[in-house]
Order: sequence, then structure tokens, then C-alpha cells
Amino acid sequence: MPDSQLERIHLTRRDALRELLADAELDALLVTDLHNTRYLTGFTGSNAALLVHAGGEDGTVFCTDRRYATQAKSQVPDLERVLERASAAALVARAAERLAAHGRLGFESDHVTVDAYETFSRLAAGIELRQAPGLVERLRMVKDATEIDALRMACAAADRALVDLIEHGGVRAGWTERQVARELENLMLDHGSEGASFTTIVAAGAHSAIPHHRPTDAVLADGDFVKLDFGAVIDGYHSDMTRTLVVGKPAAWQRDLYNLVLTAQSAAVAAARSGEKVSDVDEAARGVIERAGYGDEFLHGLGHGVGLDVHEAPSLAKTGVGTLSAGMTVTVEPGVYLADRGGVRIEDVVVVGGADNDVLTLSTRDLVTV
Amino acid sequence: MPDSQLERIHLTRRDALRELLADAELDALLVTDLHNTRYLTGFTGSNAALLVHAGGEDGTVFCTDRRYATQAKSQVPDLERVLERASAAALVARAAERLAAHGRLGFESDHVTVDAYETFSRLAAGIELRQAPGLVERLRMVKDATEIDALRMACAAADRALVDLIEHGGVRAGWTERQVARELENLMLDHGSEGASFTTIVAAGAHSAIPHHRPTDAVLADGDFVKLDFGAVIDGYHSDMTRTLVVGKPAAWQRDLYNLVLTAQSAAVAAARSGEKVSDVDEAARGVIERAGYGDEFLHGLGHGVGLDVHEAPSLAKTGVGTLSAGMTVTVEPGVYLADRGGVRIEDVVVVGGADNDVLTLSTRDLVTV
Repeated sequence: MPDSQLERIHLTRRDALRELLADAELDALLVTDLHNTRYLTGFTGSNAALLVHAGGEDGTVFCTDRRYATQAKSQVPDLERVLERASAAALVARAAERLAAHGRLGFESDHVTVDAYETFSRLAAGIELRQAPGLVERLRMVKDATEIDALRMACAAADRALVDLIEHGGVRAGWTERQVARELENLMLDHGSEGASFTTIVAAGAHSAIPHHRPTDAVLADGDFVKLDFGAVIDGYHSDMTRTLVVGKPAAWQRDLYNLVLTAQSAAVAAARSGEKVSDVDEAARGVIERAGYGDEFLHGLGHGVGLDVHEAPSLAKTGVGTLSAGMTVTVEPGVYLADRGGVRIEDVVVVGGADNDVLTLSTRDLVTV
Repeated sequence: MPDSQLERIHLTRRDALRELLADAELDALLVTDLHNTRYLTGFTGSNAALLVHAGGEDGTVFCTDRRYATQAKSQVPDLERVLERASAAALVARAAERLAAHGRLGFESDHVTVDAYETFSRLAAGIELRQAPGLVERLRMVKDATEIDALRMACAAADRALVDLIEHGGVRAGWTERQVARELENLMLDHGSEGASFTTIVAAGAHSAIPHHRPTDAVLADGDFVKLDFGAVIDGYHSDMTRTLVVGKPAAWQRDLYNLVLTAQSAAVAAARSGEKVSDVDEAARGVIERAGYGDEFLHGLGHGVGLDVHEAPSLAKTGVGTLSAGMTVTVEPGVYLADRGGVRIEDVVVVGGADNDVLTLSTRDLVTV
């Protein structure tokens, strides 16, 4: 994408944020979460803060440290730049100088620590610091076309890696969980991924009953469930997919468990439409599983938003609040875990739509045996 | 290591923390940073909180969520366990029930956000919440024998990977930075690493002048500096090493720059002894570089503590505060970066000692040409 187009996208996002600042009666917002600064500027370094002035680009300042001087010039050519190691503090001081007396500076109270807030307070002489959590996250929930493209590519890289893994015989009796995970991560890199979205989960046999098992030297054996939960990263956007396979011939209980989770997952994918309550979407899957008598074995929420963070808003859970909107990208991932026997989880990434959803993860959801 | 020995190590750490709690006149500490909870319990999951009672193990409670029930039972068999998704909040509520009226509950104000603190305040009826930053980090600065063993193994895995990489011809004209990085990360896994300590830096030619460059499709060419900054992970402990190589025959300016940084680095490694001020250790390297006229091209601090976090206390910098103690493990990594030409950084991990230091990264510091 040409740089000018990227700059326009970031400007559009900052302008959308300015509308939220006006609603919240803030004169400026100090953005300190690194995914939020990346979203608003494109900067990918590990130290960044951004002061977004409600009035416009004038007075909007980006700060990083000297290690990133070159990178900042290239990635954030369109904003005033300051180089300071204590980037957030430097911008609070800047706001105190530039805002009118009693000006209102919002800060991300869901990211800023109690100690950092004390530092900010000392620097914010003459202006007012206000808790302003979740503003950029509210924008980030609904993805623009550039973001959906990146997520689609990340999901495709993971899909292709799984096809390769299975075709190469990379999931087979005798291999360890660690070997399978490593092969899968390498295949995602082959397909253009910038890295693994998170520590790849490969859980064989009884381990599949542990929702967040980390790969061990345990060896895959005939008759095992093998749960694979993994994701690729493209342009900083994370895919997240789970498939559960069987080594050899599935037993009847495995087929039954698989079909139950698949029914629940399909119901929730269908329910994840614009305007639906997140708790109702969770219930679409949970109800199926509870009616089959496995409610206590569905140990987690249904899913979560996915984007620059692998876990972001909204949370699709029993206790979740709010409704889905078109353009949100969420995982739908019910699971049933039978301790010491095995478990099944099936997870897709879905772009919420009106009538129809767009499922970005395209790997088959039929029970695959290897 | 037998489980009983691990349990003793964690108990020893909790007892050391109790001495700090007594000094700080706290009745209990809520530990919410995941590396801190791992240090004190051995738990490796992604949701954890720990309430350490100053009085002893009785009243000390560990909390995670249901996804980790099995793992918590296995990794934290020696403590009372509670399963709640909002783990930190659950333990604040528990403390409010169990501590005497007006009991003092410390919390990690350097990790807890302003919003989380508000939640805690609502739950802490009848007790007093007190800011208590950095207590576990203070213990973690000085490593015990188990930790130094893990760091030594992590450094050895990285050393071996680099030897293999060079022997296999993995750093050569025609390869991209990305290819080299991937090969290096795979070789670390071959040598037992749990993953990469951080995004491996491979920076060729002019890119070597960017301190934290991320690998691109840029191709290594004859005459390039190639800066490799990478680390392995063993038992959660991170190694961190930088070496700068030359493809083909080094030019005179490259030899000079390399020798300057090596002289500075050697001076700082020798200076990093127990009792020395961290700012003096930084100065040992910085002085050498400044006297050569490159002070403005040394764009960062000298180094940092390394352990469960790849960057932890102490910070070895011009503005750093405090002195080194025996058993601290720190990086020593001066660099000089000539914009658009190239840069050199040389980095080792050092265990601070009295008379002699123990350098854990053993790769040669002679200028390697490939």
C-alpha cells in the first residue's frame, strides 16, 4: 500500500477518535498502549506514546526514544515527533505546557499503572487528568477494510500451514507435541506469517482436556485426540484457529463429542450477527452443550475479539455485555473437556455481518483423521 | 529437579518476601505480575494472582481460572488454590474477609492499572490498600543457583545455535535477514530453547545502524556488517546476546568501529562487579566511546537485568540508580551506530561477582567474518 494511503487511514482513525474526545469533553488524549499507538500511527516499535489533540493534527505529537529515531521518521512522517525515553511522561509535560489552563487530558486508565499515574499527576500542573479507558479500543472493535484484509491473510496463512502439515504427515503417531507445534509454526512462516500469534497449542490424548496446554515431549498415539490451537500474524493482525483431529480411527465417544462441539460451534457462528447480544451468542453454543449434559465441561467463554491483540474486545461470554456490530472480528470457540480422557475445541474467526457472516478461517470443520 | 525441591525453593522465596513485608509493615501482599507469581509459585499459566500472607503459608492463597485447574494442582500443590476468572479481585475480596480490621494489604502499584485499583478499592472494605511496588522484583534481581543454572543453559543454547549457524553457512551473501533470523531461531529450538527470548534482530549493512531493527527481506551483501541480537529461553529464563559479524573482508572503518565497541564492552564487563554503582559501570563503556568521539552514536543504556523478564531490574544506564550486588545477572551491551553506514553492538550476559564476573554467553568476541 502506498505510504500516502496508509497516512490517510491513520488520519481517519485519529479523526474518529477526536469525535469520541469531543463526546467525552476532553481536550486531548494521552495514548500509551502500544497497540493503540500502532493503530493510530502505524508505528511498530516497543516504546511509543501519542498525544491526540481534540482540535486536530496541530498539537498532536508522537513520542518514542532515540533507538527508534529512523523508524519513527519513516513510519510516522505525518506527525510532530519528539524523542524521549520516558515517552508518556514527556507528552504529559507537553500537554501541560500547551493546553489551556484547566484543560482536560484523558489517559488510558485501563493501561496506566497507579505509579505511572502519580508521575503524570506531578507533571500535569495546571491541567486536569481524567480517566478515559477504552476509547481507542472502542474504535478498534470495528475493523476497516485494511484490517479485515490483514486478518484474512493471517487466517489464510494458518489454513495453508494446516493443509501442509496434514499432507506432509506432520500429525502422526510417534511425533511429540513439541515437534508438531514447531512444524506448524515453521509452515506458517513459509506462508508469510510474521510469527506465531501466541504459543501454539498442540495437545494430544488426555492433554486435549486441558484447554491451554503447552506442547510437551508427550508422543502422539493411535486413538488420540490432537487439539491444535494456533495463529499467524500479518501486518500485526493475529489469526486464531482451533481444530481437533483424531490419530487413527475415532472411537464412538470421540465422534459424539466432536459432533456435539461442532453443532454448538455452528449454532454460535450463525448467531454471531450484528445487533445480537454477546451473551446470547455465547448461549447459542452453551445451550447446546448444556442440554447434552456437558455444561460444566465447557470451561471458558465462547470467544473474543481478535485484531492487533490476539485477545481484545468484545468478550463473547455468559457475563459479556453489549451487542455485536457489523465489522467486528471475533473468535467462536466452544470446547468440551473430559478430564483425563480428552477434549474437543473448534474455533473460527468470524467477521460479524448483517444477514451473513464472513468466516475467515477456512479449514474444514469435518472431523479429520490422520 | 524433584517436585519437593522446587516446592522448597518457592517456599524460600515466599519467606524472603515475608521479611520485606514485615519491613514495609504490610499484613499481606497481592502479587499480580505473572513473572512475579511464577517466581513465587512455579505457575506458568496466563492468569494468576497470589495473596502472600506476612504471617506464613497459612492464609497464603493462589488463584487462577478453571482453564488452569489441572495445571495449578500440579504446579502449585503446596498452596491453597481458588479458581476465579477475576483472580486478583477474588484475592482482594479474600483478604478483606480474612485480614483483621484495618489490616494492610500491599499491591503492586507498578503493575496494577488505575482502573483495577478502583475495583480493588471497592472490594477492600475494612482493610487498607497500600502501594507496594517492586518488592518481588527486588528479590528477583539477585538470582539463586537454580536461576543461574537456567540462564547458563539458555545462554549455552544461543551460543550453540550461533556456532551451528556460522558452520552451516547460515550467514552469507544472498540470504535475507528474515532467513537468517528464522534459521537462528530454529537452531535455538534444536538446542532445547522453549522459544525466542524476543524478536530476533538480524540487521545487515546500513540496517545495522538501527539499534532495534526487525528482520526484513533485505539481502546480505559482501562487505556488510550483520548484527545478530537474539536469545533462548530455558525454564522461563531468557538469554540475550548480540554479535556483529562482517560478510567478506572488513574495511578499515569496520575494524576500527568493532575494536572500539569491543574495548568499551570489555571495560564495562570488568567494571560490573558487586558494590559498583550502575551509572559507573555504564560510564566505563560510555567514556571509552565518548573519548573516541562517538558519544552521540551510543544511542541507549549499557544494559539491563535479565531473568524471567528479558528486561528487568537493574537498569545499567547513565541515569541508573543503585549499585550491583553479587548474583545479579545483567547484560553489557554498548553499541555505536553510524546512520546510513552501519553499527556495531556486542552484548554478553554477566553474573555479577566480587573479584571475578561469570560471563554466561561464551561466543567469541573476536570479529567473525563469514
